[in-house]
Amino acid sequence: MSAINKTDLTSVNTIRALAADVVAKANSGHPGAPMGMAPISHILFTRFMRFNPKNPKWINRDRFVLSNGHACALQYILLHLAGYDVSMDDLKQFRQVNSITPGHPELGVTPGIEVTTGPLGQGISNAVGLAIGQAHMGAIFNKEGFPLIDNYTYVFVGDGCLQEGVASEACSLAGHLKLGNLIAIYDDNKITIDGDTAVSFTENVEMRFKSYGWNVLHVEKGDDDLAAIENAVNEARKNTDAPTIINLKTTIGFGSLKAGGHDVHGAPLKKDDIVQLKKKFGFSPDETFAVPQETYDVYRQAAERGTQKENEWHSLFKSYAEKYPHEASEFQRRIDGRLPDGWEKALPTYTSADAAVGSRKLSETTITKLVEVLPELVGGSADLTGSNLTRWKNAEDFQHPSTGLGSYKGRYFRFGVREHGMTAICNGIAAYGGLIPFGATFLNFVSYAAGAVRLSALSHLRVIQVATHDSIGLGEDGPTHQPVETAAWLRAIPNLAFWRPADGNETSASYLVALLSQHTPSVLAFSRQNLPQLANSSIEKAAKGGYVLEEVENADVTLVSTGSEVALCLQALEQLKSKNIKARLVSLPCFEAFNAQPKEYKLSVLPSGAPILSVEAYSTFGWGAYSHDHFGLQAWGASGPFAQVYEKFDMTPDGIAKRAEKVVSFYKKRGQPVFSPLISALDEITE
Amino acid sequence: MSAINKTDLTSVNTIRALAADVVAKANSGHPGAPMGMAPISHILFTRFMRFNPKNPKWINRDRFVLSNGHACALQYILLHLAGYDVSMDDLKQFRQVNSITPGHPELGVTPGIEVTTGPLGQGISNAVGLAIGQAHMGAIFNKEGFPLIDNYTYVFVGDGCLQEGVASEACSLAGHLKLGNLIAIYDDNKITIDGDTAVSFTENVEMRFKSYGWNVLHVEKGDDDLAAIENAVNEARKNTDAPTIINLKTTIGFGSLKAGGHDVHGAPLKKDDIVQLKKKFGFSPDETFAVPQETYDVYRQAAERGTQKENEWHSLFKSYAEKYPHEASEFQRRIDGRLPDGWEKALPTYTSADAAVGSRKLSETTITKLVEVLPELVGGSADLTGSNLTRWKNAEDFQHPSTGLGSYKGRYFRFGVREHGMTAICNGIAAYGGLIPFGATFLNFVSYAAGAVRLSALSHLRVIQVATHDSIGLGEDGPTHQPVETAAWLRAIPNLAFWRPADGNETSASYLVALLSQHTPSVLAFSRQNLPQLANSSIEKAAKGGYVLEEVENADVTLVSTGSEVALCLQALEQLKSKNIKARLVSLPCFEAFNAQPKEYKLSVLPSGAPILSVEAYSTFGWGAYSHDHFGLQAWGASGPFAQVYEKFDMTPDGIAKRAEKVVSFYKKRGQPVFSPLISALDEITE
Repeated sequence: MSAINKTDLTSVNTIRALAADVVAKANSGHPGAPMGMAPISHILFTRFMRFNPKNPKWINRDRFVLSNGHACALQYILLHLAGYDVSMDDLKQFRQVNSITPGHPELGVTPGIEVTTGPLGQGISNAVGLAIGQAHMGAIFNKEGFPLIDNYTYVFVGDGCLQEGVASEACSLAGHLKLGNLIAIYDDNKITIDGDTAVSFTENVEMRFKSYGWNVLHVEKGDDDLAAIENAVNEARKNTDAPTIINLKTTIGFGSLKAGGHDVHGAPLKKDDIVQLKKKFGFSPDETFAVPQETYDVYRQAAERGTQKENEWHSLFKSYAEKYPHEASEFQRRIDGRLPDGWEKALPTYTSADAAVGSRKLSETTITKLVEVLPELVGGSADLTGSNLTRWKNAEDFQHPSTGLGSYKGRYFRFGVREHGMTAICNGIAAYGGLIPFGATFLNFVSYAAGAVRLSALSHLRVIQVATHDSIGLGEDGPTHQPVETAAWLRAIPNLAFWRPADGNETSASYLVALLSQHTPSVLAFSRQNLPQLANSSIEKAAKGGYVLEEVENADVTLVSTGSEVALCLQALEQLKSKNIKARLVSLPCFEAFNAQPKEYKLSVLPSGAPILSVEAYSTFGWGAYSHDHFGLQAWGASGPFAQVYEKFDMTPDGIAKRAEKVVSFYKKRGQPVFSPLISALDEITE
Repeated sequence: MSAINKTDLTSVNTIRALAADVVAKANSGHPGAPMGMAPISHILFTRFMRFNPKNPKWINRDRFVLSNGHACALQYILLHLAGYDVSMDDLKQFRQVNSITPGHPELGVTPGIEVTTGPLGQGISNAVGLAIGQAHMGAIFNKEGFPLIDNYTYVFVGDGCLQEGVASEACSLAGHLKLGNLIAIYDDNKITIDGDTAVSFTENVEMRFKSYGWNVLHVEKGDDDLAAIENAVNEARKNTDAPTIINLKTTIGFGSLKAGGHDVHGAPLKKDDIVQLKKKFGFSPDETFAVPQETYDVYRQAAERGTQKENEWHSLFKSYAEKYPHEASEFQRRIDGRLPDGWEKALPTYTSADAAVGSRKLSETTITKLVEVLPELVGGSADLTGSNLTRWKNAEDFQHPSTGLGSYKGRYFRFGVREHGMTAICNGIAAYGGLIPFGATFLNFVSYAAGAVRLSALSHLRVIQVATHDSIGLGEDGPTHQPVETAAWLRAIPNLAFWRPADGNETSASYLVALLSQHTPSVLAFSRQNLPQLANSSIEKAAKGGYVLEEVENADVTLVSTGSEVALCLQALEQLKSKNIKARLVSLPCFEAFNAQPKEYKLSVLPSGAPILSVEAYSTFGWGAYSHDHFGLQAWGASGPFAQVYEKFDMTPDGIAKRAEKVVSFYKKRGQPVFSPLISALDEITE
C-alpha cells in the first residue's frame, strides 16, 4: 500500500467529474452516489482489489458488488479506469439501447460485473452468496500451503438496500455464518429519493448489524479522509471471524451545488453545476470525459499488481495440480461449469410397479443420488427441511466450525425462514462459480422471493428451487399455503423453467434438464400427497417438457395435465373409454422446455383435429396457449384433508370426465375443424 | 386486575390440553406453540384484552394478531373460551373442509380473527398497520374528553416471523413511527422446523429491536411465571412513546414428553403423550375437549368487562355525536365503509383536446382530487414519492409529532424502501376500519410484496397499489426495472383487479372501480411516458374493464390492447385503413372487471367473426383467453430512451400493423369461421 498522495485526490475528483459527465451525456441516471462514493471506490480499487481486467473470470479474484446498482455510472467508470473492456465510448453510450453500459449493472453484459443489481437489497444479499461460495470452495479445495481460494467480497450498500427485507434476511444469516471475507461499505449519506432519511429510516444501523453478529467500523469523513478509509478496509480484512460493515459517512453528490440533497440522487446535474464542479476540482470546465494520465496510471498499476497475483496463482495451481491431481481436475471441471461424465446415470428411473409416493419424496431420492456424483450441488431449505425433504443422509451443514454444527465444507444450508434472502444468496453462490445451488420452500412461498427469482432468470444463473407442497394437495394448511397463481407467474418469467413432475421419471427429468441448463434457473414443484408411477413415462420423454402419455387413433379429445392431476386424468380416461369417448392424454411438466422443442414435435403432442382440455389444480391463466378449454381453480383453495379438498372443487376423475364429455359434444355440435392452439399467425415473424 | 390464582393455572393447562386434543382430532396441525404460549394468552385475554365477543367488529376493541398463524388452534380455543361464535364443535372441525376453523386464521371466516396469518412475517406487519390505523383514527376523531379510539394492538410473533424480511421492514418503520399502542410478544422458544434456532437464527433479537427504536422487555419464565407476564404487559401498556416487544422465554409443547423439541412443532402429539400430559395437569386422561367451568367463568368475566367497556363507549359516542355531530356522522360513515354521496364527481374527465401526459401524472391529478372528498383515503410510497407522484399538495406526513415532520393526523406515509412491509401494513390499515390505504412503488417492485399482495386478495381487503413505470416505457432504467411477467402474475391472482389505464378517463375509471370494490384489492399500473387522451374513452365505458374504442362494420381484425400500447394501436389502425384492412380496437384495462360483465356485453366487445390480436408490451402469457394471436415481449426489456426501446422490439404502429396484416391473411387463408375466444365449452358447468 502506498500513502495517500495528490494523484489520489485528483483521481477521486476525476471519478466525480466523470460521473457527472456520463449521466449528463445520457441525460438520465444517478450522479449523486458515484460522487459521494468516489473516495472509497478509488481506495478500494487502487489499494485492495485483486483483479485482472483481461481475465475478469479468474476464480480467485476479489468480488466487487454495487448493491446500490443505480450508481452504476461509478462502476462502469472504475471498470474503464482499471482497464476492463469498457471504453470511453462505452461510457458515452451509458443507458443507450444495445450498449454494454445499461441503466443498472447486468451480469453477462459488461465485463467485470459480478451480479445483476439495481433492485434494492439484492446486491448485498448476492454478496453474502459470493462470500459463501468463497468460504465453501476454499474449504473444499485449499490445502496446506495452497490457498487456492481466499478472495474477499466487497459490497457497496446504500440506505435503500438496508431498508429492504431481503438485505435483513441475508445479513442476519451472514452474521450467523461468520463470513469473515465479506466486507460491506455502507454509504451513509442520509438521503433517499423521498429526501432525508429522517422521514422513514431512523433505526441505528450500526447497532442492528452488531445484533446480527457483524464487525462494525465507522469512518466519519468519507468524503475526503482517504487515510481513514484505507485504515478501515485494512482493519476489516484483518477481522476474519465475522463479516464487517464500514459505516462511511458521505455527502451525496459531493462537489455539486446540490450536494447533500436528494435532487442530486437521480437526475443529471445542470450544466453550470458541472462547470463549477470541474473548476472547483481544478479541471478544465470545457473538457468532458477527461481522465488525467496519472489517474490511468495508478489504476493500471493496480491492474498490473492483480495480473501479477493471477500469474502467481496459476503457478500455485500448477504445483497444486502436481500434488493433488484429482482435486485439481475436479476444481477445473467445476469452475468451467462442466458436469462430470455420466452423472445423469445416477438419476433414478421407475416403472409402474414402483410404489406411489409424494413427488417431494421422489425429489429427496433424486437429490440423495445426485449429491454423490455432483459435489458442486449444494443447497438447503428456508427452515422447511423436514417438509421439503431436501437434506440427504450424512449431509454436513454449512456452518462456521466454532458452532460445532458443521463446517464450511458442509454442503447443506440452514437458510432460516428467509425465502427472499435464500434465493438472492443462491444467485450469489451460482455467480461465484464451481457450484450449483438449490434453495427450498413451499411453492407458495417462492413468491416471497419474487424479487430474486426474476433476477436468477435475467442473470442466466443455474439456480434450482425445490418447491414442495405444490397445490391444494397440501391439504390442511389451507388457502394461505396453497398456490393458485404461482405457476402462472413463474411460467410468465422469461428464461425460467417451471417444472411440475407427475411421477418419478418426470422428477428425474426435471433435475436432468435443470442441471443441464447452465444459463437458466428452474423451479421444481413437488407434491406432498402420493402419486402413482406412470406406465408410459420416461426421463427422455419428460425431458422434452411435454409428451404423449396415452395415445389413441382418431381421438375425440386430448387431455393435457401436469403433476398430481395427471394420474387423475388417467382415471378419467378409463371412464371416458367406457362411454366410447376416445381420449388422449398429454403430460406437460414444463412449458419452457416444451416451447423449445421443434414445431413438428410440439404439434405431434398437441395436434389439430380434436379439442384439447387442460386439467390443473391452479388458476387456468395462461393455458390458452396449449388448450381450447381449461379446468382449474376459479379462486382460492381450502383447508382440509387433500382428497376432500380435491372433491370440493370437483377435481376428481368424475369431474374431469364430465368436463371432457362437455368439450367433446360442444365441438361436435360446432362442427368445424379444430386447430391446435400451437398454430399461430405470427410464428413466421422473427423478432 | 386480579392476582394470579389457581383458576389461572388450571386455565393455562386447560388451553394446553385442549390444543393437544384439537390437533389430535384433526390429525394435523401445530400443538407446540399453543402449549408454549398458553400462559401469555391466558393473561392477555383474561386481564387485558378489551373485547365484546358478541360484537367482534366494535371499532375500539383491542386487536389481537397471531403472527405465527400455524398456532391457530390456540386462537380458536381462546375465541371459544371468550364466548365468540366458535363452538366446541367448531374446534372439533379444525382443519376440515368448510369449517370456520381452517388450517391458518383467515379474515372473514372466523369471528374474532383480525387479519389472515400463517405466511410468516405477515401478522406482525399487519399489526403495525393496525396500530397505524388506531393512531391515525384517534388523532383525527378523538376530542378532549372523548377518547373514541385508544385501543391496543397485541401481536404474538415467533422465531419464524422475526426471520422474515417483511417483519424487519415493518418493525423498523414501527419504531420510527413510535407506535406506542403496539405490543408484540416474542415467543422465544428457540425452536423452528429445522430444529434449534442455533442452526440459523443466532442474532440478538433484543438488540435488533432496540436498534429499531422499540421498547424491549424480557420475561425469563414464560412457562409459569404468570405474575411476571402480567407485569410485563402492564409495563408495555404504560410505555406510550414506542412500540414494545416482550421477549418471552417459553418451552415449545410445554407439558408434552417432547417439550422443547421441534418434533412437537407441527405434528399431533401421540396418544400416550396426551394421556401423561392430562394426568400431569390433573385432568382426566379419558376426557377430551374438556373445559372446567371455572375456566369458562373467568373468560366470560373478561368478556363481560369488555362488553361493559363497549357499552360505556357507546354512551361516550352518543355524547360525542351531540357535541360534534359532523365528526360523529363522518366517523360512523367511515367505519361502516360507506363512501360519501357524490364522491365520484371528483374524478377528472378528459377529452382528446387535453394534453398528453404520463398516466402516473394522471394518477396524481386523480389522487389530488380524491383526497379532498375522501378523508379516509390515506397512503404513501416506498421511497419513490417523486417518481410515483403520489403525494398531493399540502399533504401532511404521518409522523410522530416529536419529529417535527408531521403528526398522526397526517395522511401521507413515508414507507421507506420497504415494498413488502408497505403492502402488509396497508393490509393492516384496511383491516382496522375507517380507512382506505394505498401504497406505491414501480410496478416491477410490486413483486417484492408478492407475499402480502396475495393476502390482500385472499383477505378481501380494499387496498390499492399505485404501480408506476409500468413497462419498457420506463426507458433507461432497463430490464432490472421493466416488468414483463408482473401483469400475468397479478391477473392470475383471484379477487385482485390489475388495471392498466390507457388515458385520463381510464385512469379515473380505475380509481372509481378500485374504491367501489369494498372487498377486492387493486393494482393500478401507470406509465412514465406521455399518453394522449383518447377520443372515445369514458369513465363509464372503461369501468367495465374492457370496451370498444374504435368500431367498424365487417371488421377484418380486432386489436385488443392496454395502457400505453392503445395509442400505438390507434396509429396502427390508420395504417391498416390505408391498406383497406378494417380493424376494430378494444381497450381492455382490467381483465378482472371485464370478466365480471354479462356474457352478452363481453361478446359484443370481443365477438366472433374476425381474428383478435392482442398488443401489450409484456409477456403474452394469459392473453389466450381474449385473443387468437398475441404480440408482446418474448423476453426481457432493454435500457435506453423509451421510444428506442419500443423500436428495438418492433412495438410501433408499423410493427403492430404488420402483424395485424399477417393475422388477417392467415385467417383468410384458413377460410374457417373465427370464434371468439370467450366462448368456452365449460361455461355451462357451474362449480
